[in-house]
Amino acid sequence: MQCKHCEKLQENSDLIFETECWKIFLAHQQAYLGRCKVTLKRHCGCLSELTQKEWIDFSEVAKKLEFSLKKSFGAIMFNWTCLMNNAYLVSNTDPHMHWHFRPRYDKKVEFCDIVFDDPDFAHHYDRTRKKEILQEVRDNIIEKIKENM
Amino acid sequence: MQCKHCEKLQENSDLIFETECWKIFLAHQQAYLGRCKVTLKRHCGCLSELTQKEWIDFSEVAKKLEFSLKKSFGAIMFNWTCLMNNAYLVSNTDPHMHWHFRPRYDKKVEFCDIVFDDPDFAHHYDRTRKKEILQEVRDNIIEKIKENM
Repeated sequence: MQCKHCEKLQENSDLIFETECWKIFLAHQQAYLGRCKVTLKRHCGCLSELTQKEWIDFSEVAKKLEFSLKKSFGAIMFNWTCLMNNAYLVSNTDPHMHWHFRPRYDKKVEFCDIVFDDPDFAHHYDRTRKKEILQEVRDNIIEKIKENM
Repeated sequence: MQCKHCEKLQENSDLIFETECWKIFLAHQQAYLGRCKVTLKRHCGCLSELTQKEWIDFSEVAKKLEFSLKKSFGAIMFNWTCLMNNAYLVSNTDPHMHWHFRPRYDKKVEFCDIVFDDPDFAHHYDRTRKKEILQEVRDNIIEKIKENM
């Protein structure tokens, strides 16, 4: 079975930027405006197997993303998670290292005539909140994040 | 107001081990057997402000913890999160960088005559699951993790 993260790395849809070791994609769900997935460019299953170079490169990604999201949309702080649960739904799993990045907001943000809110600010993210937006709006979010890096 | 993480760093209760930059504490709740908190030894508010040295040191912590939890209790994989939400419940916040580490299990584990389970393995962790255990059991968990590092 082909790894869906390796597939995404070839496709490059919704790519915001890439570094030597990581690619940063705008996530499908945008309940948290600017939510991203940060995917390692090689197929590697867990955090313990990251090289020093990949960690340092990741630290630069984190800095860039946090800086841009504050500047672009006024994000206040950020939730970073490395979970990898889905990979374990199947036996003989072969997971692919990635981070989830959720910017958090203390007020509503209007962008492209859409209001994004974060009613649970200062609390755990709510996985049931969904927000799907048109590709045109997604492209504008990507452009804005790139502009402010 | 004193930072509760700085206080904890001075107290050292439930300390498992420390490195140059981080201290690793057994978390209060043990619904996920071996759950830890990894706290930066200096007061620093976000991931963007970590130095390269702190990142590399953290990568060694992650390796050691994952290795030991697999060996100690048969953990299958791990959820790492850097959330920091609670700090933003107050205005004029002054957060202190820490990671939450949850080992995940595909079967029940018995330790010190207590059964620990993970009914949501391969799914997001359940924040409502609580498990408080006696200090004696906590000390045994800490010893076991140290032994296997």
